Amino acid sequence: MFDSVTVMGAGGRAGSAISARLRQRGLTLRERDAELALLCVPDSAIAEVAAGVRPGPWIAHVSGATPLSALDPHERRFSVHPLQTLVTWRGPDQLDGAYGAVTAETDEARERGFWLASMLGLEPFELQDGNRALYHAGAVVASNFLVTLYRAAARLVEDAGAPPEALVPLMKRTIENDFEPTGPITRGDWPTVAAHLDALHDRRPELEPMYRALAEATSR
Amino acid sequence: MFDSVTVMGAGGRAGSAISARLRQRGLTLRERDAELALLCVPDSAIAEVAAGVRPGPWIAHVSGATPLSALDPHERRFSVHPLQTLVTWRGPDQLDGAYGAVTAETDEARERGFWLASMLGLEPFELQDGNRALYHAGAVVASNFLVTLYRAAARLVEDAGAPPEALVPLMKRTIENDFEPTGPITRGDWPTVAAHLDALHDRRPELEPMYRALAEATSR
Repeated sequence: MFDSVTVMGAGGRAGSAISARLRQRGLTLRERDAELALLCVPDSAIAEVAAGVRPGPWIAHVSGATPLSALDPHERRFSVHPLQTLVTWRGPDQLDGAYGAVTAETDEARERGFWLASMLGLEPFELQDGNRALYHAGAVVASNFLVTLYRAAARLVEDAGAPPEALVPLMKRTIENDFEPTGPITRGDWPTVAAHLDALHDRRPELEPMYRALAEATSR
Repeated sequence: MFDSVTVMGAGGRAGSAISARLRQRGLTLRERDAELALLCVPDSAIAEVAAGVRPGPWIAHVSGATPLSALDPHERRFSVHPLQTLVTWRGPDQLDGAYGAVTAETDEARERGFWLASMLGLEPFELQDGNRALYHAGAVVASNFLVTLYRAAARLVEDAGAPPEALVPLMKRTIENDFEPTGPITRGDWPTVAAHLDALHDRRPELEPMYRALAEATSR
Protein backbone atom coordinates (compact mmCIF):
# COMPACT_ATOMS: atom_id res chain seq x y z
CA MET A 1 0.00 0.00 0.00
CA PHE A 2 3.00 2.23 0.75
CA ASP A 3 6.47 1.27 -0.43
CA SER A 4 8.28 4.23 1.03
CA VAL A 5 7.85 6.17 4.27
CA THR A 6 9.48 9.27 5.72
CA VAL A 7 9.51 8.87 9.50
CA MET A 8 9.79 12.22 11.26
CA GLY A 9 10.98 11.99 14.85
CA ALA A 10 12.69 8.64 14.24
CA GLY A 11 14.94 9.14 17.25
CA GLY A 12 12.13 9.14 19.81
CA ARG A 13 10.52 6.30 21.76
CA ALA A 14 7.81 5.63 19.19
CA GLY A 15 9.79 6.71 16.13
CA SER A 16 12.72 4.39 16.73
CA ALA A 17 10.57 1.29 17.25
CA ILE A 18 8.37 2.18 14.27
CA SER A 19 11.29 2.90 11.90
CA ALA A 20 12.98 -0.36 12.83
CA ARG A 21 9.76 -2.30 12.28
CA LEU A 22 9.09 -0.69 8.87
CA ARG A 23 12.65 -1.52 7.82
CA GLN A 24 12.12 -5.13 8.99
CA ARG A 25 9.02 -5.29 6.80
CA GLY A 26 11.02 -4.23 3.76
CA LEU A 27 9.71 -0.71 3.37
CA THR A 28 12.07 1.99 2.12
CA LEU A 29 12.67 4.76 4.63
CA ARG A 30 13.39 8.03 2.86
CA GLU A 31 14.62 11.36 4.20
CA ARG A 32 11.86 13.10 2.22
CA ASP A 33 9.35 12.68 -0.65
CA ALA A 34 8.12 9.22 0.39
CA GLU A 35 4.55 8.02 -0.25
CA LEU A 36 3.74 8.51 3.45
CA ALA A 37 5.03 11.12 5.88
CA LEU A 38 4.74 9.51 9.33
CA LEU A 39 5.01 11.98 12.20
CA CYS A 40 6.45 10.43 15.38
CA VAL A 41 7.22 13.83 16.89
CA PRO A 42 5.91 15.07 20.29
CA ASP A 43 2.21 15.96 20.29
CA SER A 44 2.94 19.65 20.66
CA ALA A 45 5.10 19.63 17.50
CA ILE A 46 2.69 17.77 15.18
CA ALA A 47 0.89 20.81 13.74
CA GLU A 48 4.09 22.67 12.99
CA VAL A 49 5.84 19.68 11.44
CA ALA A 50 2.74 18.80 9.39
CA ALA A 51 2.51 22.36 8.08
CA GLY A 52 6.06 22.00 6.79
CA VAL A 53 5.37 18.81 4.82
CA ARG A 54 4.92 19.43 1.07
CA PRO A 55 1.25 18.69 0.25
CA GLY A 56 0.57 15.71 -1.99
CA PRO A 57 1.55 12.42 -0.35
CA TRP A 58 -0.23 10.78 2.56
CA ILE A 59 0.47 12.01 6.07
CA ALA A 60 -0.18 10.34 9.44
CA HIS A 61 0.69 10.75 13.09
CA VAL A 62 1.02 8.20 15.89
CA SER A 63 -0.37 10.24 18.78
CA GLY A 64 -3.28 9.02 20.88
CA ALA A 65 -4.38 12.42 22.07
CA THR A 66 -3.97 14.63 18.99
CA PRO A 67 -6.89 15.20 16.60
CA LEU A 68 -6.47 14.74 12.86
CA SER A 69 -6.99 18.47 12.38
CA ALA A 70 -3.43 18.93 13.64
CA LEU A 71 -2.42 17.58 10.22
CA ASP A 72 -4.04 20.55 8.40
CA PRO A 73 -3.94 21.53 5.60
CA HIS A 74 -3.34 17.92 4.46
CA GLU A 75 -6.45 15.97 3.52
CA ARG A 76 -5.02 12.53 2.75
CA ARG A 77 -4.41 11.79 6.39
CA PHE A 78 -4.96 9.35 9.25
CA SER A 79 -3.43 8.33 12.57
CA VAL A 80 -2.30 5.06 14.12
CA HIS A 81 -1.72 5.11 17.88
CA PRO A 82 0.16 2.10 19.27
CA LEU A 83 -1.59 1.39 22.59
CA GLN A 84 1.65 0.43 24.28
CA THR A 85 4.23 1.93 26.61
CA LEU A 86 7.32 2.21 24.42
CA VAL A 87 10.83 2.43 25.80
CA THR A 88 14.08 3.13 24.01
CA TRP A 89 15.78 -0.03 25.32
CA ARG A 90 13.36 -2.37 23.54
CA GLY A 91 13.28 -2.81 19.78
CA PRO A 92 10.40 -3.11 17.31
CA ASP A 93 9.26 -6.34 19.01
CA GLN A 94 7.61 -4.25 21.68
CA LEU A 95 4.90 -3.42 19.14
CA ASP A 96 3.95 -7.10 18.78
CA GLY A 97 0.75 -8.07 20.52
CA ALA A 98 -0.25 -4.47 21.23
CA TYR A 99 -3.37 -2.89 19.77
CA GLY A 100 -3.38 0.12 17.47
CA ALA A 101 -6.07 2.82 17.34
CA VAL A 102 -6.73 3.87 13.74
CA THR A 103 -8.46 7.19 13.14
CA ALA A 104 -9.52 8.23 9.66
CA GLU A 105 -12.09 10.37 7.89
CA THR A 106 -12.50 8.40 4.63
CA ASP A 107 -12.60 4.73 3.66
CA GLU A 108 -9.39 5.19 1.70
CA ALA A 109 -7.59 6.65 4.72
CA ARG A 110 -9.02 3.99 7.05
CA GLU A 111 -7.78 1.22 4.77
CA ARG A 112 -4.30 2.74 4.84
CA GLY A 113 -4.41 3.16 8.62
CA PHE A 114 -5.37 -0.48 9.14
CA TRP A 115 -2.67 -1.53 6.70
CA LEU A 116 0.00 0.48 8.52
CA ALA A 117 -1.11 -0.78 11.96
CA SER A 118 -0.91 -4.40 10.78
CA MET A 119 2.45 -3.74 9.14
CA LEU A 120 3.71 -2.44 12.49
CA GLY A 121 2.55 -5.62 14.24
CA LEU A 122 -0.44 -4.02 15.93
CA GLU A 123 -3.98 -5.37 16.23
CA PRO A 124 -5.95 -2.49 14.66
CA PHE A 125 -9.27 -1.09 15.84
CA GLU A 126 -11.08 2.03 14.79
CA LEU A 127 -11.23 5.11 17.00
CA GLN A 128 -13.41 8.14 16.25
CA ASP A 129 -11.52 11.41 16.30
CA GLY A 130 -14.04 12.89 18.76
CA ASN A 131 -13.50 10.04 21.24
CA ARG A 132 -9.74 10.46 21.51
CA ALA A 133 -9.65 12.27 24.83
CA LEU A 134 -11.78 9.62 26.52
CA TYR A 135 -9.78 6.79 24.96
CA HIS A 136 -6.47 8.39 25.86
CA ALA A 137 -7.62 9.06 29.41
CA GLY A 138 -8.32 5.31 29.63
CA ALA A 139 -4.82 4.51 28.39
CA VAL A 140 -3.29 6.85 30.96
CA VAL A 141 -5.36 5.33 33.76
CA ALA A 142 -4.26 1.85 32.70
CA SER A 143 -0.57 2.53 32.24
CA ASN A 144 0.66 5.74 33.91
CA PHE A 145 -1.49 5.27 36.97
CA LEU A 146 -0.39 1.65 37.21
CA VAL A 147 3.13 3.03 37.73
CA THR A 148 1.72 5.37 40.37
CA LEU A 149 -0.04 2.50 42.13
CA TYR A 150 3.11 0.43 42.19
CA ARG A 151 5.17 3.30 43.57
CA ALA A 152 2.64 3.99 46.31
CA ALA A 153 2.36 0.30 47.19
CA ALA A 154 6.14 -0.12 47.12
CA ARG A 155 6.55 2.81 49.51
CA LEU A 156 4.07 1.28 51.97
CA VAL A 157 5.60 -2.17 51.78
CA GLU A 158 9.10 -0.75 52.18
CA ASP A 159 8.02 1.36 55.14
CA ALA A 160 6.74 -1.88 56.64
CA GLY A 161 10.21 -3.40 56.20
CA ALA A 162 9.17 -5.76 53.40
CA PRO A 163 10.73 -6.07 49.93
CA PRO A 164 8.81 -4.05 47.30
CA GLU A 165 9.70 -6.59 44.59
CA ALA A 166 7.32 -8.94 46.41
CA LEU A 167 4.50 -6.92 44.83
CA VAL A 168 5.45 -7.84 41.27
CA PRO A 169 4.19 -11.47 41.23
CA LEU A 170 1.01 -10.20 42.90
CA MET A 171 0.39 -7.55 40.27
CA LYS A 172 1.20 -9.85 37.36
CA ARG A 173 -1.18 -12.50 38.65
CA THR A 174 -3.93 -9.93 39.19
CA ILE A 175 -3.81 -9.28 35.43
CA GLU A 176 -3.45 -12.99 34.55
CA ASN A 177 -6.54 -13.69 36.69
CA ASP A 178 -8.50 -11.38 34.37
CA PHE A 179 -8.71 -8.81 37.15
CA GLU A 180 -10.79 -11.06 39.39
CA PRO A 181 -11.12 -8.99 42.53
CA THR A 182 -10.02 -10.32 45.92
CA GLY A 183 -9.13 -8.59 49.18
CA PRO A 184 -10.84 -6.72 51.99
CA ILE A 185 -12.92 -4.20 50.03
CA THR A 186 -14.30 -6.92 47.78
CA ARG A 187 -15.34 -8.99 50.77
CA GLY A 188 -16.67 -5.97 52.66
CA ASP A 189 -14.07 -6.25 55.42
CA TRP A 190 -14.34 -2.65 56.66
CA PRO A 191 -12.31 -3.07 59.91
CA THR A 192 -9.29 -3.95 57.74
CA VAL A 193 -9.89 -0.92 55.52
CA ALA A 194 -10.16 1.26 58.64
CA ALA A 195 -6.84 -0.18 59.90
CA HIS A 196 -5.23 0.70 56.53
CA LEU A 197 -6.50 4.26 56.77
CA ASP A 198 -5.18 4.61 60.33
CA ALA A 199 -1.77 3.32 59.25
CA LEU A 200 -1.70 5.65 56.23
CA HIS A 201 -2.78 8.58 58.35
CA ASP A 202 0.05 7.95 60.81
CA ARG A 203 2.83 7.05 58.43
CA ARG A 204 2.06 8.13 54.85
CA PRO A 205 -0.63 10.81 55.06
CA GLU A 206 0.21 11.99 51.53
CA LEU A 207 -1.15 8.68 50.18
CA GLU A 208 -4.45 8.93 52.05
CA PRO A 209 -6.41 10.88 49.39
CA MET A 210 -5.40 8.40 46.69
CA TYR A 211 -6.31 5.41 48.88
CA ARG A 212 -9.69 6.95 49.70
CA ALA A 213 -10.50 7.79 46.07
CA LEU A 214 -9.58 4.28 44.95
CA ALA A 215 -11.43 2.58 47.81
CA GLU A 216 -14.48 4.66 46.93
CA ALA A 217 -14.22 3.68 43.25
CA THR A 218 -13.67 0.03 44.24
CA SER A 219 -16.69 -0.27 46.47
CA ARG A 220 -19.00 1.44 43.99
CA MET B 1 9.87 -29.52 60.93
CA PHE B 2 6.20 -30.48 60.90
CA ASP B 3 5.08 -33.84 59.61
CA SER B 4 1.38 -33.31 60.16
CA VAL B 5 -0.87 -30.27 59.76
CA THR B 6 -4.53 -29.60 60.49
CA VAL B 7 -5.74 -27.06 57.94
CA MET B 8 -8.80 -25.18 59.15
CA GLY B 9 -10.79 -23.49 56.39
CA ALA B 10 -9.42 -25.86 53.76
CA GLY B 11 -12.35 -25.11 51.46
CA GLY B 12 -11.52 -21.42 50.99
CA ARG B 13 -9.35 -19.66 48.43
CA ALA B 14 -6.19 -19.81 50.52
CA GLY B 15 -7.00 -23.05 52.35
CA SER B 16 -7.56 -25.14 49.24
CA ALA B 17 -4.32 -24.07 47.56
CA ILE B 18 -2.38 -24.49 50.79
CA SER B 19 -3.82 -27.94 51.60
CA ALA B 20 -3.09 -29.18 48.10
CA ARG B 21 0.48 -27.89 48.29
CA LEU B 22 1.13 -29.49 51.70
CA ARG B 23 -0.20 -32.77 50.39
CA GLN B 24 2.08 -32.47 47.33
CA ARG B 25 5.01 -31.97 49.70
CA GLY B 26 4.20 -35.22 51.49
CA LEU B 27 2.85 -33.76 54.73
CA THR B 28 0.03 -35.57 56.48
CA LEU B 29 -3.17 -33.56 56.74
CA ARG B 30 -5.14 -34.49 59.83
CA GLU B 31 -8.64 -33.57 60.92
CA ARG B 32 -7.27 -32.73 64.37
CA ASP B 33 -4.28 -33.19 66.73
CA ALA B 34 -1.58 -32.47 64.15
CA GLU B 35 1.74 -30.83 65.02
CA LEU B 36 0.54 -27.56 63.48
CA ALA B 37 -2.97 -26.08 63.39
CA LEU B 38 -3.02 -23.83 60.31
CA LEU B 39 -5.93 -21.39 60.25
CA CYS B 40 -7.03 -20.48 56.72
CA VAL B 41 -10.37 -19.10 57.92
CA PRO B 42 -11.66 -15.56 57.29
CA ASP B 43 -9.86 -12.87 59.31
CA SER B 44 -12.94 -12.20 61.43
CA ALA B 45 -13.10 -15.88 62.48
CA ILE B 46 -9.44 -16.35 63.44
CA ALA B 47 -9.74 -15.45 67.14
CA GLU B 48 -12.75 -17.68 67.70
CA VAL B 49 -11.29 -20.66 65.84
CA ALA B 50 -7.94 -20.25 67.61
CA ALA B 51 -9.65 -20.16 71.00
CA GLY B 52 -11.20 -23.53 70.15
CA VAL B 53 -7.89 -25.23 69.35
CA ARG B 54 -6.57 -27.42 72.18
CA PRO B 55 -3.39 -25.74 73.54
CA GLY B 56 -0.13 -27.55 73.00
CA PRO B 57 0.77 -27.86 69.33
CA TRP B 58 1.92 -24.99 67.11
CA ILE B 59 -0.70 -22.70 65.63
CA ALA B 60 -0.46 -20.29 62.70
CA HIS B 61 -2.69 -18.19 60.47
CA VAL B 62 -2.26 -17.03 56.88
CA SER B 63 -3.82 -13.58 57.14
CA GLY B 64 -1.96 -10.44 56.11
CA ALA B 65 -3.97 -8.07 58.25
CA THR B 66 -4.52 -9.98 61.48
CA PRO B 67 -2.09 -9.59 64.42
CA LEU B 68 -0.63 -12.63 66.15
CA SER B 69 -2.60 -11.73 69.29
CA ALA B 70 -5.68 -13.11 67.51
CA LEU B 71 -4.12 -16.53 68.19
CA ASP B 72 -4.36 -16.02 71.99
CA PRO B 73 -4.00 -17.84 74.31
CA HIS B 74 -1.56 -19.90 72.23
CA GLU B 75 2.10 -18.97 72.59
CA ARG B 76 3.75 -21.27 70.07
CA ARG B 77 2.47 -19.28 67.13
CA PHE B 78 3.37 -17.47 63.90
CA SER B 79 1.78 -16.39 60.65
CA VAL B 80 2.63 -16.81 56.97
CA HIS B 81 0.79 -14.54 54.55
CA PRO B 82 1.05 -15.52 50.87
CA LEU B 83 1.36 -12.17 49.07
CA GLN B 84 -0.73 -13.35 46.15
CA THR B 85 -4.26 -13.06 44.84
CA LEU B 86 -5.61 -16.61 45.18
CA VAL B 87 -8.54 -17.93 43.17
CA THR B 88 -10.41 -21.19 43.50
CA TRP B 89 -9.90 -22.12 39.83
CA ARG B 90 -6.11 -22.35 40.17
CA GLY B 91 -4.32 -25.06 42.11
CA PRO B 92 -1.33 -24.95 44.45
CA ASP B 93 0.91 -23.76 41.59
CA GLN B 94 -0.45 -20.27 42.12
CA LEU B 95 1.72 -20.08 45.25
CA ASP B 96 4.90 -20.57 43.21
CA GLY B 97 6.93 -17.43 42.70
CA ALA B 98 4.93 -15.42 45.21
CA TYR B 99 6.44 -13.99 48.38
CA GLY B 100 5.32 -14.89 51.88
CA ALA B 101 5.31 -12.57 54.89
CA VAL B 102 6.41 -14.42 58.02
CA THR B 103 5.55 -12.91 61.40
CA ALA B 104 6.86 -14.42 64.61
CA GLU B 105 7.78 -13.45 68.15
CA THR B 106 10.57 -15.94 68.84
CA ASP B 107 13.43 -17.43 66.85
CA GLU B 108 11.84 -20.83 67.14
CA ALA B 109 8.57 -19.56 65.69
CA ARG B 110 10.36 -17.59 62.96
CA GLU B 111 12.27 -20.67 61.89
CA ARG B 112 9.00 -22.58 61.61
CA GLY B 113 7.35 -19.75 59.70
CA PHE B 114 10.18 -19.61 57.16
CA TRP B 115 10.09 -23.37 56.85
CA LEU B 116 6.34 -23.38 56.18
CA ALA B 117 6.57 -20.52 53.67
CA SER B 118 9.30 -22.34 51.74
CA MET B 119 7.33 -25.58 51.90
CA LEU B 120 4.38 -23.75 50.36
CA GLY B 121 6.57 -22.51 47.49
CA LEU B 122 6.77 -18.93 48.76
CA GLU B 123 9.83 -16.68 48.96
CA PRO B 124 9.78 -15.81 52.69
CA PHE B 125 10.54 -12.42 54.21
CA GLU B 126 10.03 -11.22 57.75
CA LEU B 127 7.24 -8.83 58.67
CA GLN B 128 6.92 -7.19 62.10
CA ASP B 129 3.51 -7.64 63.67
CA GLY B 130 3.20 -3.88 64.20
CA ASN B 131 3.78 -3.15 60.52
CA ARG B 132 1.00 -5.36 59.22
CA ALA B 133 -1.54 -2.64 58.50
CA LEU B 134 0.94 -0.65 56.42
CA TYR B 135 2.14 -3.77 54.59
CA HIS B 136 -1.39 -4.96 53.94
CA ALA B 137 -2.46 -1.52 52.72
CA GLY B 138 0.38 -1.78 50.20
CA ALA B 139 -0.84 -5.19 49.05
CA VAL B 140 -4.37 -3.83 48.60
CA VAL B 141 -3.10 -0.83 46.65
CA ALA B 142 -1.08 -3.13 44.38
CA SER B 143 -3.74 -5.75 43.75
CA ASN B 144 -7.29 -4.63 44.55
CA PHE B 145 -6.76 -1.14 43.22
CA LEU B 146 -5.17 -2.57 40.10
CA VAL B 147 -8.53 -4.22 39.43
CA THR B 148 -10.19 -0.86 40.06
CA LEU B 149 -7.82 0.89 37.64
CA TYR B 150 -8.49 -1.65 34.93
CA ARG B 151 -12.24 -1.38 35.37
CA ALA B 152 -12.13 2.41 35.18
CA ALA B 153 -9.82 2.36 32.16
CA ALA B 154 -11.96 -0.30 30.45
CA ARG B 155 -15.07 1.82 30.95
CA LEU B 156 -13.41 4.84 29.35
CA VAL B 157 -12.00 2.89 26.44
CA GLU B 158 -15.35 1.17 25.87
CA ASP B 159 -17.19 4.48 26.02
CA ALA B 160 -14.78 5.64 23.32
CA GLY B 161 -15.83 2.64 21.19
CA ALA B 162 -12.52 0.82 21.59
CA PRO B 163 -12.00 -2.76 22.83
CA PRO B 164 -11.11 -2.88 26.56
CA GLU B 165 -8.96 -6.00 26.03
CA ALA B 166 -6.56 -3.67 24.20
CA LEU B 167 -5.50 -2.45 27.65
CA VAL B 168 -4.14 -5.82 28.73
CA PRO B 169 -0.90 -5.86 26.69
CA LEU B 170 -0.33 -2.27 27.79
CA MET B 171 -0.71 -3.09 31.47
CA LYS B 172 1.40 -6.25 31.27
CA ARG B 173 4.20 -4.37 29.54
CA THR B 174 4.07 -1.56 32.08
CA ILE B 175 4.98 -4.15 34.71
CA GLU B 176 7.56 -5.89 32.47
CA ASN B 177 9.19 -2.49 31.88
CA ASP B 178 9.80 -2.28 35.65
CA PHE B 179 7.18 0.44 35.90
CA GLU B 180 9.16 2.88 33.76
CA PRO B 181 6.79 5.82 33.49
CA THR B 182 5.68 7.17 30.10
CA GLY B 183 2.71 9.30 29.05
CA PRO B 184 1.50 12.87 29.36
CA ILE B 185 1.90 13.45 33.11
CA THR B 186 5.46 12.14 33.05
CA ARG B 187 6.38 14.46 30.21
CA GLY B 188 4.50 17.39 31.72
CA ASP B 189 1.96 17.57 28.89
CA TRP B 190 -0.74 19.48 30.79
CA PRO B 191 -3.00 20.33 27.80
CA THR B 192 -3.52 16.58 27.31
CA VAL B 193 -4.31 16.12 31.01
CA ALA B 194 -6.77 19.02 30.80
CA ALA B 195 -8.43 17.37 27.78
CA HIS B 196 -8.76 14.12 29.78
CA LEU B 197 -10.41 15.98 32.65
CA ASP B 198 -12.83 17.71 30.26
CA ALA B 199 -13.76 14.37 28.69
CA LEU B 200 -14.21 12.73 32.10
CA HIS B 201 -16.27 15.64 33.34
CA ASP B 202 -18.61 15.36 30.34
CA ARG B 203 -18.88 11.60 30.07
CA ARG B 204 -17.73 9.84 33.24
CA PRO B 205 -17.89 12.41 36.05
CA GLU B 206 -17.87 9.63 38.65
CA LEU B 207 -14.28 8.80 37.63
CA GLU B 208 -13.04 12.36 37.96
CA PRO B 209 -12.05 12.24 41.68
CA MET B 210 -10.04 9.07 41.13
CA TYR B 211 -8.29 10.53 38.07
CA ARG B 212 -7.46 13.72 39.95
CA ALA B 213 -6.12 11.89 43.02
CA LEU B 214 -3.94 9.64 40.85
CA ALA B 215 -2.71 12.50 38.65
CA GLU B 216 -1.81 14.40 41.80
CA ALA B 217 0.08 11.38 43.21
CA THR B 218 1.79 10.84 39.83
CA SER B 219 3.07 14.38 39.43
CA ARG B 220 4.36 14.56 43.00
